[in-house]
Amino acid sequence: MKYEGPKIIELGEREALARAVKAFKSVPSTLVGSGDDAAVVALDDPRVVVTTDTMIENHDFKLEWSSAFDIGFKAVMTNLSDLVAMGARPRALTVALIVPNQTAQSWLEEFALGLQTACDQHAPQCEIVGGDLATGDQLVVAVTALGDLGDSAPVLRSTAKVGDQVIVAGTLGKAAAGLSLLQAADSTLADSYPELVGIQLRPVPDLALGTEVARTATSMMDISDGLSLDADRLASKSNVSLALKRSLLEGYSAVLELAAQSINSRTPNSVSEWNWVLHGGEDHSFLATFPAGSQLPRGAKVIGEVIELKEHGVFLDQEPLTAAGWDSIRG
Amino acid sequence: MKYEGPKIIELGEREALARAVKAFKSVPSTLVGSGDDAAVVALDDPRVVVTTDTMIENHDFKLEWSSAFDIGFKAVMTNLSDLVAMGARPRALTVALIVPNQTAQSWLEEFALGLQTACDQHAPQCEIVGGDLATGDQLVVAVTALGDLGDSAPVLRSTAKVGDQVIVAGTLGKAAAGLSLLQAADSTLADSYPELVGIQLRPVPDLALGTEVARTATSMMDISDGLSLDADRLASKSNVSLALKRSLLEGYSAVLELAAQSINSRTPNSVSEWNWVLHGGEDHSFLATFPAGSQLPRGAKVIGEVIELKEHGVFLDQEPLTAAGWDSIRG
Repeated sequence: MKYEGPKIIELGEREALARAVKAFKSVPSTLVGSGDDAAVVALDDPRVVVTTDTMIENHDFKLEWSSAFDIGFKAVMTNLSDLVAMGARPRALTVALIVPNQTAQSWLEEFALGLQTACDQHAPQCEIVGGDLATGDQLVVAVTALGDLGDSAPVLRSTAKVGDQVIVAGTLGKAAAGLSLLQAADSTLADSYPELVGIQLRPVPDLALGTEVARTATSMMDISDGLSLDADRLASKSNVSLALKRSLLEGYSAVLELAAQSINSRTPNSVSEWNWVLHGGEDHSFLATFPAGSQLPRGAKVIGEVIELKEHGVFLDQEPLTAAGWDSIRG
Repeated sequence: MKYEGPKIIELGEREALARAVKAFKSVPSTLVGSGDDAAVVALDDPRVVVTTDTMIENHDFKLEWSSAFDIGFKAVMTNLSDLVAMGARPRALTVALIVPNQTAQSWLEEFALGLQTACDQHAPQCEIVGGDLATGDQLVVAVTALGDLGDSAPVLRSTAKVGDQVIVAGTLGKAAAGLSLLQAADSTLADSYPELVGIQLRPVPDLALGTEVARTATSMMDISDGLSLDADRLASKSNVSLALKRSLLEGYSAVLELAAQSINSRTPNSVSEWNWVLHGGEDHSFLATFPAGSQLPRGAKVIGEVIELKEHGVFLDQEPLTAAGWDSIRG
């Protein structure tokens, strides 16, 4: 993608930032916003929830595929889903951005707009309160997000109970399908599946649904690295095993069949919709456990149940489901 | 510096992190530490103070000069000084680390020890509660720090009053002198001034003194980019000018004279102790304003006074002092 106009380096950090932060809106809970040594954010509850997540060029995104807007948007959403998975309301973000030295100011301003738009659409009470801008060899975005628990208890990964239902709130495998479409040898394929590609580039986990799930969930996490790996983490932290049912996951794979066929018709057997569903990351949907028999929020789906700890963390129709998701070091 | 043993990439993110975080100590205020979607930290006060700062290989440090321990230590101290400059007590840190893919696990573990040692020595109530580890083209450390205001008001940059004394708490120019020594053509020079080089590699702003200053200061900030630039920022935010006196700064330059002479005897006129004092960054000392006549904490020094806004933000003996500090984009 092409970004015209002056380079950030021609403007200097102060001026470049001053122009970019004009995109940011303030919220009443921010007592001191950006521009001082630190920001001050008034929470309702003195228990602050904090998470941080980094996106790196060519590891987590490619500049051929992602616009500046996409990268800003995604950086925010991946962090907000972590807060919501704890049962917290997003209240503030800080953004450390490293850009290659020839980056255009117009890129920076569109990135800032992506950050703000994600907040506007998904967390209007959350402000971008500070950050850092510097140059480096490759583009890096490190976001830290702060959340407020109100008077709720945090929802952990470690508190699933035997007999609970295992549920998913949100899509599974769509972001991975989008990635496969972008990677396909036939570069026109991606255009045929804009929804899937869109979820890869600008994930939109349903934070309102996640917030509702958190009210009743006995345990919860966001699925960032794929169902198999993240379910294994939840099982391990909770000292239980999870028995998932393929029949309950069929709805997720069915909507991806056509995309998988399209890719495989060009490069046979290169992808599988079940691989996307079971092992694909980046939808940032929610995995949770619910007390048996409790009413599920509309949009959440049961995919299995919590059983006593066995030799494996996760089973699919009685067979061990080996974790095969994303490791940020080994890929 | 040499780091032996297995590479991080051979271990994978999970195992590499699990070994490194063993260096971290927990504190009682951390309700949920690392290992979940987010951490939960109990503050005394629901106003959370948050700051973030990034260090990039070859921009902010060089691996020939800085050990893994140094880099971890410095990343923590630069963030803690920002919290203290707001009048906040450090309570939690998150650390996003990007390492080149051939980095040894022993490097990572020494880095973690540097992080923890800075907390142990300077902020024992502060815990490293989370973070992120990934590989990239160059080493990047992005730290976010959370602070607690207790029942104090935050100390801003924007509230200096005409008639206040301008004060400094901590060293000025030593970190810059250390950098010049490391950069000197004669590589044995650095060994002759271990204190100055030490402050460059592992800055130790006096956080206890800063905390005491914050109790009375009418305005305050940390001096990260050099006195001239940071004083100008404070003046600009407060809509005042600052009249500094050279005679009051002589103590800072006197202790750097010998180092400057040593460098200049090899490369004539390459450095000046006054340049270090006026424009050198990275000591992370505190710049503050105090009501006229109020008692100064031991260790704080008056360097001038706050005057009405004039054409320039900062004057040195009636002459405009042009900001010449560090811009993270332009250097």
